[in-house]
Amino acid sequence: MTLRYDTVTFCSDYGRTDEFVGIVHSVIRSIAPGVAIIDLTHDIARQDVRAGGLLLGRSAQYLNPGVVLAVVDPGVGGTRRPVAVEVGGGQSVLVGPDNGLLAPAVAMCGGASTAVVLDNPDYQMPAPGATFAGRDVFAPAAGYLCAGVPLRQLGTEIDPAVLMPAMVPIPRREDDALVCEVLWVDTYGNAQLNLDPSELPDGEVLIVATAERSRRARRVDAYVELGPGELGLVTDSYGLVSLAMDQRSAAAELGVGEAAEVTVRVDDGDGDDGAGGPGGGAVSPVQLGPTRRP
Amino acid sequence: MTLRYDTVTFCSDYGRTDEFVGIVHSVIRSIAPGVAIIDLTHDIARQDVRAGGLLLGRSAQYLNPGVVLAVVDPGVGGTRRPVAVEVGGGQSVLVGPDNGLLAPAVAMCGGASTAVVLDNPDYQMPAPGATFAGRDVFAPAAGYLCAGVPLRQLGTEIDPAVLMPAMVPIPRREDDALVCEVLWVDTYGNAQLNLDPSELPDGEVLIVATAERSRRARRVDAYVELGPGELGLVTDSYGLVSLAMDQRSAAAELGVGEAAEVTVRVDDGDGDDGAGGPGGGAVSPVQLGPTRRP
Amino acid sequence: MTLRYDTVTFCSDYGRTDEFVGIVHSVIRSIAPGVAIIDLTHDIARQDVRAGGLLLGRSAQYLNPGVVLAVVDPGVGGTRRPVAVEVGGGQSVLVGPDNGLLAPAVAMCGGASTAVVLDNPDYQMPAPGATFAGRDVFAPAAGYLCAGVPLRQLGTEIDPAVLMPAMVPIPRREDDALVCEVLWVDTYGNAQLNLDPSELPDGEVLIVATAERSRRARRVDAYVELGPGELGLVTDSYGLVSLAMDQRSAAAELGVGEAAEVTVRVDDGDGDDGAGGPGGGAVSPVQLGPTRRP
Repeated sequence: MTLRYDTVTFCSDYGRTDEFVGIVHSVIRSIAPGVAIIDLTHDIARQDVRAGGLLLGRSAQYLNPGVVLAVVDPGVGGTRRPVAVEVGGGQSVLVGPDNGLLAPAVAMCGGASTAVVLDNPDYQMPAPGATFAGRDVFAPAAGYLCAGVPLRQLGTEIDPAVLMPAMVPIPRREDDALVCEVLWVDTYGNAQLNLDPSELPDGEVLIVATAERSRRARRVDAYVELGPGELGLVTDSYGLVSLAMDQRSAAAELGVGEAAEVTVRVDDGDGDDGAGGPGGGAVSPVQLGPTRRP
Repeated sequence: MTLRYDTVTFCSDYGRTDEFVGIVHSVIRSIAPGVAIIDLTHDIARQDVRAGGLLLGRSAQYLNPGVVLAVVDPGVGGTRRPVAVEVGGGQSVLVGPDNGLLAPAVAMCGGASTAVVLDNPDYQMPAPGATFAGRDVFAPAAGYLCAGVPLRQLGTEIDPAVLMPAMVPIPRREDDALVCEVLWVDTYGNAQLNLDPSELPDGEVLIVATAERSRRARRVDAYVELGPGELGLVTDSYGLVSLAMDQRSAAAELGVGEAAEVTVRVDDGDGDDGAGGPGGGAVSPVQLGPTRRP
Repeated sequence: MTLRYDTVTFCSDYGRTDEFVGIVHSVIRSIAPGVAIIDLTHDIARQDVRAGGLLLGRSAQYLNPGVVLAVVDPGVGGTRRPVAVEVGGGQSVLVGPDNGLLAPAVAMCGGASTAVVLDNPDYQMPAPGATFAGRDVFAPAAGYLCAGVPLRQLGTEIDPAVLMPAMVPIPRREDDALVCEVLWVDTYGNAQLNLDPSELPDGEVLIVATAERSRRARRVDAYVELGPGELGLVTDSYGLVSLAMDQRSAAAELGVGEAAEVTVRVDDGDGDDGAGGPGGGAVSPVQLGPTRRP
């Protein structure tokens, strides 16, 4: 069988304890034998659409062209719409619930050219209940797309502009400080901020303040340049600023989790100085219409 | 190499921390290069044959034809027999220990047509110890079956009727109540009961009682129909009744785990009312002889 | 595309929560479509080079020929060198950081014939930061090796003798006792010792002493031969002596973890008798030059 797409990249919040991930693999392969399925991760925090969207957005530029299947779907069986969204002039199709999960990756890929609601029952599994759309709706869509079924055959075409956007926080300037947000804490405890290295204030040493404490942090290129217990600001592998320590968890040390507010400012010499800035961060919608890739 | 079976579906209680799963993949591929291996899960509770059997039984109808390799094997190296069991007129072969693990899936596939004990050392790996039958006995059997070695060449044929059956609990009627058992708690905390939706008493609201408490529960089609804190009875993705809440763990809320007893009855208006019924659940053996598929 | 190597075996301490493992798969497949990637494990204890090296060494003889990609890399971005090491006359190539991680597997494969430092930027991904060498340096190396790029083209050749060796502990005789070390605790709680069964003192029952307690242990062939609560000495699936119990964790029972010291001696009849021997274990460097396979 000649495949229209030969790779499905799959991520979800299913965990690996139950059989859900394996069943989705089976359904895809039963429709498109020979397709390669890459598991990006299945340990997105349960029903955390924001975390899933950020993960997909970070990953997008490294994924093989093909179908991207993403399932974090707290509204399963309700009014949220299952969708397939074409990007890159048909190079890839993202499949998942229309709840903002796909938006950051769609934006990274230059925006959507076509979108359909997956409402054609001919391309779904008959299901005794409405709780496992990954198996019954999304996996068949991924499989049929790989097998060459045209996108528009899977359901009703909609304007990509009505897809649910994602709210991506942007840093906010407040006097001499940048009020940032933790986008992601990785498995090593590095805390990625929504901050481009070019936005950092000048100076090798800066002050990083969380809700509870304030610490000096040094700009370095690699974790190993940091001394024991020293906090660092590292340009991470995705090109953003991460708070890091050498062989320790910076997030645990600072007591910050995902979505925590972190203030970065110049070290004016008065050292540790109370808490971070007040108020919430600003958010900016990610556009889903066709855009130019940066 | 033309493969007799092109897919191995693999589940176990090996976890993913050690190298066991990867080694089994390597052994299978060394015998049958090009075979696709689908990991159903490797996080079955350690040595929990019942949980593994139920998982396989739930999954069976969604699996690709081929070899199904299942290893939950507390008796490894002892007198329990390693077996391969053919179902569906040769469409698939289940490989694993004869301890009841395979029985629910065999039954779901219409019963066994042929069974052999894997006692031919020509199709095993030489092993320094008897503790890793997955690598030394089961993986080679799976690989050689894919590569085209006839089932009967792998060992001594036995009557499928002597295979170890699985005990599947069936609900028991007690006055106006149904005494059920929790078959499975999934990663979201939904608690699947051994109960067909058609067996539920009439009424949109029912009373669900565990050993410790009693709660009203409403019949709904999707989790999102439930209000905050409300308990639901949902027809799950396998067609059985599950206790569920919206974006919360019903199992944690009710304090029930797998194999817990749960009583369901009509709401007679006197609300929360003490504990569930006494006594244990009934069990019924699953037949392993050839049967008609439902 | 005809592949020079058709299998990449991949292990790391990345965990499966983040997208790291999936991104590495994507990068390899983008360079060498059609290659099979076997995940050995990604749950090596974070930055535990010793544990990763032992895991690779145990696994080596069961792996498919091809590329072995191993990443436990606390020194990422620092002075440690990324390397590729050819073994078996070109049958396989190990790729990873030169920090001792690869050494046990290289030794098990008969030693290195060629080694290169991965310093040719033509075969790396352009990276915004230096923190994800798995994606930017190691995965491309693995992919290009599979695609047929000659090893020496990936960077500067070095003498295999200067590769970082691994320190493998060897048991030490002390009066009538053998002072051993726990190499590995598996997911079931079996504790593998650095002890060949032929080195065990005579007698079916021996005394096993840890820092905190001393217990009788019986030599058996399978876990199921042990009674409830009984401690066993089993020849494990890798041919070494493991401390084990039937369906319980021997490591938890004895309070030992990896690298703990354990003393084994003849049972002289005075039963439980205080703690193990003093002092540390001896270590012996694993040679990385070409050696004869045992």
